[in-house]
Amino acid sequence: MPISEENTADHLTSSQCWDYIRQARFARLAVVVEGQPEIFPVNFAVDHGTVVFRTAAGTKLAGALSGNPVAFEIDGYDDTLSSAWSVVLKGGAALLEDYDEIMDSEDLALFPWQTGAKNAFVRIEPEVTAGRRFLISNAARRNVLRGMGLYTE
Amino acid sequence: MPISEENTADHLTSSQCWDYIRQARFARLAVVVEGQPEIFPVNFAVDHGTVVFRTAAGTKLAGALSGNPVAFEIDGYDDTLSSAWSVVLKGGAALLEDYDEIMDSEDLALFPWQTGAKNAFVRIEPEVTAGRRFLISNAARRNVLRGMGLYTE
Repeated sequence: MPISEENTADHLTSSQCWDYIRQARFARLAVVVEGQPEIFPVNFAVDHGTVVFRTAAGTKLAGALSGNPVAFEIDGYDDTLSSAWSVVLKGGAALLEDYDEIMDSEDLALFPWQTGAKNAFVRIEPEVTAGRRFLISNAARRNVLRGMGLYTE
Repeated sequence: MPISEENTADHLTSSQCWDYIRQARFARLAVVVEGQPEIFPVNFAVDHGTVVFRTAAGTKLAGALSGNPVAFEIDGYDDTLSSAWSVVLKGGAALLEDYDEIMDSEDLALFPWQTGAKNAFVRIEPEVTAGRRFLISNAARRNVLRGMGLYTE
């Protein structure tokens, strides 16, 4: 069903979700550490239906992973700000320890967001892929444009 | 200490964090539901050292809130993609039930991102405000520019 004023959110198919994921270059990752949520930006590569990102070793991140479920989110909006979309992957995440597995990655363009030593690679195997696209209300659009200095009425 | 090749991440002061927050219009929220992380985009307003967002009532969000800690994140990068920043607020979140409290909000430009009925307002009272700004490696910058179709070497 197309989105309309009556039906303001549209669930994306898995294929549509992956189209967005393949076009994106960075995402936000949410993990649970001692019962509390942590969230941080990552850049990532797609590898055979999984996503791989590179991060600093030795942080509390390592403790939060090793198969525990994480949520990985990307979002954006079209150029006219009439619709926005959000895609979330959920699944287990684990540190990659086998360098061959890392180098086998289809997309070798996986660089750390920060300069400096960042030697841990983490792979998320999604069990749930969910996305939606929704109309942006006129009021919200004006608010965002005003924030960008593009709307002065 | 300024950021440099040797010192690639720079902790932001609370004041710098709030400068970024006041300029931002939307963020991502991470909550824990039944031990697992959930993440979704929200638009928000700043109100006396807290952030308030508007969302759909009756979702599992309500169960995840009522004072439980959440993580709220914004990020961005400068125009030349030489540095990026991320700010995270952590603290309890609670549904606002008192309409006077809502209307007392300093920033009335708080609109739902989606059209349709979205009548729940949630306030986050941050206990932790943390931010960092970091250099983007040349490799990551080329990768991002390539993704934008702006780098063809």
